[in-house]
Amino acid sequence: MGNTFGQLFRVTTFGESHGGGIGVVIDGCPPRIEISETEIQRDLDRRRPGQSKLTTQRREEDRCEILSGLFEGKTLGTPIGILVRNKDARPEDYREIARKFRPSHADYTYEAKYGIRNWQGGGRASARETIGRVAAGAVAKKILSALYADFELVAYVTQVHEVAANVDRSSVKMSDVEKSIVRCPDPAVAKEMIALIEKVRKSGDSVGGVIECVVRGIAPGLGAPVFDKLEADMAKAMLSIPAAKAFEIGSGFGATRMLGSQHNDPFETRAGKIRTATNNSGGVQGGISNGEQIYFRVAFKPPATIALEQKTVTASSEQTKLAARGRHDPCVLPRAVPIVEAMAALVLCDHALRQNAVQL
Amino acid sequence: MGNTFGQLFRVTTFGESHGGGIGVVIDGCPPRIEISETEIQRDLDRRRPGQSKLTTQRREEDRCEILSGLFEGKTLGTPIGILVRNKDARPEDYREIARKFRPSHADYTYEAKYGIRNWQGGGRASARETIGRVAAGAVAKKILSALYADFELVAYVTQVHEVAANVDRSSVKMSDVEKSIVRCPDPAVAKEMIALIEKVRKSGDSVGGVIECVVRGIAPGLGAPVFDKLEADMAKAMLSIPAAKAFEIGSGFGATRMLGSQHNDPFETRAGKIRTATNNSGGVQGGISNGEQIYFRVAFKPPATIALEQKTVTASSEQTKLAARGRHDPCVLPRAVPIVEAMAALVLCDHALRQNAVQL
Amino acid sequence: MGNTFGQLFRVTTFGESHGGGIGVVIDGCPPRIEISETEIQRDLDRRRPGQSKLTTQRREEDRCEILSGLFEGKTLGTPIGILVRNKDARPEDYREIARKFRPSHADYTYEAKYGIRNWQGGGRASARETIGRVAAGAVAKKILSALYADFELVAYVTQVHEVAANVDRSSVKMSDVEKSIVRCPDPAVAKEMIALIEKVRKSGDSVGGVIECVVRGIAPGLGAPVFDKLEADMAKAMLSIPAAKAFEIGSGFGATRMLGSQHNDPFETRAGKIRTATNNSGGVQGGISNGEQIYFRVAFKPPATIALEQKTVTASSEQTKLAARGRHDPCVLPRAVPIVEAMAALVLCDHALRQNAVQL
Amino acid sequence: MGNTFGQLFRVTTFGESHGGGIGVVIDGCPPRIEISETEIQRDLDRRRPGQSKLTTQRREEDRCEILSGLFEGKTLGTPIGILVRNKDARPEDYREIARKFRPSHADYTYEAKYGIRNWQGGGRASARETIGRVAAGAVAKKILSALYADFELVAYVTQVHEVAANVDRSSVKMSDVEKSIVRCPDPAVAKEMIALIEKVRKSGDSVGGVIECVVRGIAPGLGAPVFDKLEADMAKAMLSIPAAKAFEIGSGFGATRMLGSQHNDPFETRAGKIRTATNNSGGVQGGISNGEQIYFRVAFKPPATIALEQKTVTASSEQTKLAARGRHDPCVLPRAVPIVEAMAALVLCDHALRQNAVQL
Repeated sequence: MGNTFGQLFRVTTFGESHGGGIGVVIDGCPPRIEISETEIQRDLDRRRPGQSKLTTQRREEDRCEILSGLFEGKTLGTPIGILVRNKDARPEDYREIARKFRPSHADYTYEAKYGIRNWQGGGRASARETIGRVAAGAVAKKILSALYADFELVAYVTQVHEVAANVDRSSVKMSDVEKSIVRCPDPAVAKEMIALIEKVRKSGDSVGGVIECVVRGIAPGLGAPVFDKLEADMAKAMLSIPAAKAFEIGSGFGATRMLGSQHNDPFETRAGKIRTATNNSGGVQGGISNGEQIYFRVAFKPPATIALEQKTVTASSEQTKLAARGRHDPCVLPRAVPIVEAMAALVLCDHALRQNAVQL
Repeated sequence: MGNTFGQLFRVTTFGESHGGGIGVVIDGCPPRIEISETEIQRDLDRRRPGQSKLTTQRREEDRCEILSGLFEGKTLGTPIGILVRNKDARPEDYREIARKFRPSHADYTYEAKYGIRNWQGGGRASARETIGRVAAGAVAKKILSALYADFELVAYVTQVHEVAANVDRSSVKMSDVEKSIVRCPDPAVAKEMIALIEKVRKSGDSVGGVIECVVRGIAPGLGAPVFDKLEADMAKAMLSIPAAKAFEIGSGFGATRMLGSQHNDPFETRAGKIRTATNNSGGVQGGISNGEQIYFRVAFKPPATIALEQKTVTASSEQTKLAARGRHDPCVLPRAVPIVEAMAALVLCDHALRQNAVQL
Repeated sequence: MGNTFGQLFRVTTFGESHGGGIGVVIDGCPPRIEISETEIQRDLDRRRPGQSKLTTQRREEDRCEILSGLFEGKTLGTPIGILVRNKDARPEDYREIARKFRPSHADYTYEAKYGIRNWQGGGRASARETIGRVAAGAVAKKILSALYADFELVAYVTQVHEVAANVDRSSVKMSDVEKSIVRCPDPAVAKEMIALIEKVRKSGDSVGGVIECVVRGIAPGLGAPVFDKLEADMAKAMLSIPAAKAFEIGSGFGATRMLGSQHNDPFETRAGKIRTATNNSGGVQGGISNGEQIYFRVAFKPPATIALEQKTVTASSEQTKLAARGRHDPCVLPRAVPIVEAMAALVLCDHALRQNAVQL
Repeated sequence: MGNTFGQLFRVTTFGESHGGGIGVVIDGCPPRIEISETEIQRDLDRRRPGQSKLTTQRREEDRCEILSGLFEGKTLGTPIGILVRNKDARPEDYREIARKFRPSHADYTYEAKYGIRNWQGGGRASARETIGRVAAGAVAKKILSALYADFELVAYVTQVHEVAANVDRSSVKMSDVEKSIVRCPDPAVAKEMIALIEKVRKSGDSVGGVIECVVRGIAPGLGAPVFDKLEADMAKAMLSIPAAKAFEIGSGFGATRMLGSQHNDPFETRAGKIRTATNNSGGVQGGISNGEQIYFRVAFKPPATIALEQKTVTASSEQTKLAARGRHDPCVLPRAVPIVEAMAALVLCDHALRQNAVQL
C-alpha cells in the first residue's frame, strides 16, 4: 500500500532503482486529452541525473515509453501505463551497503519494516521512483491547462543553505527559472548557489534548501473543508518527496508572529471579481481555493549520501564506518523542482476532477 | 468527499456548528478494545469551549454519546458511531455574516464551491467539526497503548506570537502540559503567554503560534516508502486542522541551513538496539519510523474572527465593513493541543494496522 | 472496514439492532439538491417492520432525523448524517442465543472473526442495518432524477418459493408494485404469494424468492471497463443485502443456453438514437450502460430464523437444540424491495458522478 | 477509475489489446513471499490464446516480465510490476469495426462514454486485459498457501450450453480439471463439450456456459458484515470478468425454492471443530467465512464475436451488416477458468490481509 496517490486522478508508481525499470499507471485521466511522449520527456529530462554539473553523474537517459491509454495522440480514458527502463546499474557500487546501514537513509527502516531490501542503490527509496510522478505530472498539467485558460505552475529554488534569493512571486515564469542550472530565477543569487554547491561537492558534503511553488489561474472552489483541504493534500504531496522536511503555505510559520488584524486578507472587488487585497492565505481559505495565487514552500534537507566518513552499524549491530563511493547529488534542489511541480499538479488535477464531479 | 481519514482505521466526521449535532463514525477499529464514554469525554473536555478564561465563552458541554460499536465496554469490531449534540445556538449572532464574507474565513470559498452555505457560525468550517476527530483520537490512543507498551503522545504550545518556550522534548509529559491553561509546559513562559493572549483579546485582536508534538514508544517499521510516508500522512493530518499553516518534522526548516555531515544521524548500538546518536530525522527515515522519538511542529495563524472592524464585500460584491460580535477565541492554540494529539494518533494507529496486515 | 460503499457518492453506515441507533453518513452528495426527512421517511416506511401482516411484528417506527448536511431544505455538499433510534429492545428474547449459535445466522462467524459479539438480536448482522442504506438511497434517487429526466427505478417480487409472477418488465411502475403488501405487481399471483407466506409462517417455517429490478432513463456511458463494471458493482451491491444468494443481469443464467447468434443484441436506429433491437445485455455492454433499460434479478434465501426446532451447538461446542422465539419475518422479500431499489440507486448515482467528473 | 481491485492487496491493471502491452501493478503484497516468473507464467499459459484447438488461434506467447518488487526470488513488500508485451497485432483485421459497432461488444458504449476508442481489437475491453489479473492471482495464491496449510482453489467448467457435467464438488482437484482441454473434470461430458464447441465453431456461432469454483482450507472469520461481505466482493470480482452474466453462491437461485427448515445448515461438532452438517451457505454466513468449503458458480454468455452476419449500425447511425473476420473463441469457458481462479484468489487474499490487520 501507499503507492497510489489521488482519489479520481489516481497515480500508482512502481519500480526500484535497480531492476527492470520504473513506471507509473495513471487511472482516471479524462479522455481526448492530447499528450505525447515528447511532452512527458521534457519534464523527465529536467529531473534526470547528469543534466548539469550540479547533479549526480549517474548516466540514465530516462527515456519513457507510453505502454497504454493513448490512441492517435489522445488519451482514451483508460489507464496510461508509462515505463522507463533502468540502465546504468553498477551493483558493485553497493556491495558495502548490503551490510552497513547508511545514516539517514532508508536502509535500516526498510529492514525493520520488510525484513528484506533491495540494497542495490536504495531500491524503492531511490529518488528514481519520482520518475513516475514527473511523468504523471506532465499529464496533469495538460488537463489543468485544458480546464483553466490562465493556468501557470512555477517552482523554483529560493534558498540553498544560507544563500537566499529575492524573487517576485507574482511575476516569475518558468523560463526565468530554467535560465540557470540551479533553477533559481534570481540570476546573481543563482551564481552564488552554484558556487556553493560545487564547493560543498568538492568537500564531500551535501547541502539543503527551499523550493517555492506558485500556481496561478486556478478557479475558486477547489479543495474540501475537512481532511482533504487543498493545503492538507498539498502538504502530504510535498512531504512525500524524498528529503522533504517541512511545508508552509501562504504566510506559513511567519503567521505565528502576526496579529489577526495584520494577517486577515480583506476582500475587495477588482475587475468585477471578488478578490483579496493581500494574500497571506496563500490562495486557500478553509481548505478551498479562493482564486488568488496559490503559493507554498518546501524545505529539503541535505542529501544523506556524502563522501565523508560516517559512523554507523552493520545489519548485525556491529559498530563500523562508511563513506559513500560513486556518484551522488550534493544538493537535490535543482532536480527536485520538476518533482514539486508534478506533485502540485497531481493534487490540483485531482481536486479539479473532484469538483467537476458534483457540478450537476 | 474528503470527510474520511485513514486507510484501515477510517474516521468519517459529519456535522455543522449549528444543526442536529457533530459526529464521527470509526470504521476498522479492532475488536475487544476497552473504551468508555468517560475516556472519550476526557479529551473532548480538553477541546471544548469555555474551559478557561482563554477560550471562547460559547457554552457547549459537548457531551458525547456512543451510538454503536461497543458492547459491555468493549469494541465489537463494527463501526463506532459517536454523537455530540449542538446546544448553544444563537443564530441571531450570525445574521450579518449571512450576506458579508468574513475575511480569511471560509464563507467566500464555500459559496464558490457549493453555491450554498450554512451561514450560522461557519457551518462545516467551524472548529466544532474537530469534536469527531478528538473522539476518534481517544480510541486510537487506546489501540496504540495496547500495541506499544511504552507509547506516549504529548503535544504542547511552544510559541505564542513572539513568546517562545524552552521545553525538554525528551522528557516532557502530558501532566506538565495540563498544568497551565495555555498548555505550555514551561511555567514561566506559560504565564507570559496567558498575559499576552488576554491583552490581545482585550484589544479585539487575535494571535497565533506553534504546537510541538512528540511521540514515544512507536516501533520501527511504521509508514510507507512513497506517497504514504509517515511524515506525509502526518503533514496532511496537521494541515487539515483549522488555522494550520505549516508543518515541519525533525530538523524541519532548520535542515536547510545544515550540511549533510551535520544533519545525518549516525547509527549506534544502545542497550542492544540499533539507535541513532542524534535525531534530526524526527524519528522517520525514508517515510518509515526508525524507533526514535517522533516529533514535529505545526504553525497556527491568528484566528480570523476579530472584534476590530475590517474591510470586506457582500455576497453581491458591494464594499462593506464587518466587526465580529459575540464570542470567539483570541488564540486557538490551547484548544488545538488535543486536536493535534488526536490527528497524530489517527495517523499512527492507521499505519500500525497497515503494518500489522502484512505480518504473516 | 467494509462499512462504506461508493467511490464518489460514499455511504457509511453504523449501528447494531440494539444500542443507541442505526445511522448513515453520506459523503460526496452534490450541493443544492432538495431533500426532506419526509421523502426519506417514505422509503424507510416501506422497509420497516410491522407495516403489514406479512412482516415481523417488532414495533419500530424507524423515524429518521437528519443531523447535518442540509440547510433550508437543500443539501450543503457536506456530509449528510441521518440517525434512526432503536426503540423496541427486548434483550430477554435473545438470552438463549447468547450461548447458542443460530444455524445459518452470523452468530458463529462473528464470534470467529471478532472474538466478541452483541448477541442482542444479531447486532450488526441485523437487517436493521439496511435502514441507513434505504435513507441514502432516497437521496441518491433524488440526484438521479435531477440528472435524468426519464429516470425510473422499480423493483418487485417476481417469485416466492414456487410461485412465479408474470410481469411486463418494460411497463411496470412502482404504483403497480405498491398495490399489494407482497410487492408483486401481478395481482393474482400476489394473492397466491400472500397466502403461501401466511401458511409458511403458521408452520413456523420461512421461504425465499426472487426480486427483479428495472431502471429506465439512464444515459449511455455509465460504468467502467474493468473491475468497476456497472454489473460488477451492482452484483456487489445486491449480494451485500442480507439473505441474498445470487445475482443475474439481463439474460443471466439463461444466456448459458443460448447461441451467440441468438444472444447478441443487434443495433438499430430508433427515433434518431442508436438502440438495440433486443436487450439480452440488460442495458450494460462491456461494463458500461448502453441507454437501454437496465434489469437484473436477485435471489433471496428463506430467512434463517424459524420457529421450528433445529440442531445446533453452543459456544462451548456442546450439541443442543434451538427454536426461535419472538417475532420474525417468514419471508424477507416484501421488505427487501426498497433495499434493492436503494442499493441500485447508490450504484448508479456513484457512477453518474464518476462519469460527470471526467466530462471536461 | 475502476482499474484497481482490492483494499489491501491492491491490483491495478493497464493496457489495450493493441499497443505496448498489458500489465499489472500489485501493491500491498507482504514481503518475503517466494514467487517466480515461472509460476506466474504457468497460469498465464492456461489463459493464453492458441493453447488448444478450442481457443482462438491468435498467436500470443504472453511471456511475462517482472519489472519490480522482487529481489533474489522474494517479494520486497514494494509494488510488483508485471508486463506482457502485445505481439500478434493485425490491425487490418479491425478496419471494418473502426466504423461499425459490433453487436453486444463494448464498441458503442466506449464511444458513448469516452468519445474515443482504440478500435484495434476492442482495446481495453479485450479479454487480454485479464492477463494482469491472472498474473496477480498467481501471487495471491502463493500468499494464501502461506497462510492456510490446506488451501485449495479449483475452478472448472460444469456446463456448456445444454451439456452439464456431474462433478463431486468436495473432492475435485485441479489435476482432474487440467486433464481435458475444455477444463471439465467429468471426462465423458468433457468430450461432449469439446464436440459441441467444435460444431459451434464450424457453424460460425458461439456458446456460453457455467464455471464452478470451490475453495478449501480458508479459516473462519474472513469477510465483513455489511458492504464488503465475502460473497459481495466475490460477486463483484466474477461479474467483472468479460462475458459474465450471473453469480450464485452456495444454494444460489436454488435457495428460492427451499424452506428455511431445509436450507439452514445445522451446526455440529466434528473432529473437535464447529462445523455445519450441510453447506447451503456455500461457506459464508453473514458475509463472513465459516470454515466450510466456499463454492460458487458464474454464468458466461456466448462470446459476442461470431462469423455469422449480423445487423448493426455505423458510428454515423446508418444501418449496416457485419460478420467477424479472423480469429476468435467460440466459447470462452476453458480460458476463463484461470481467470475465475485468479479473481477468487484476489478477493480471498485481500480479505485475509484485512482480517490480519485487526488481530492485535
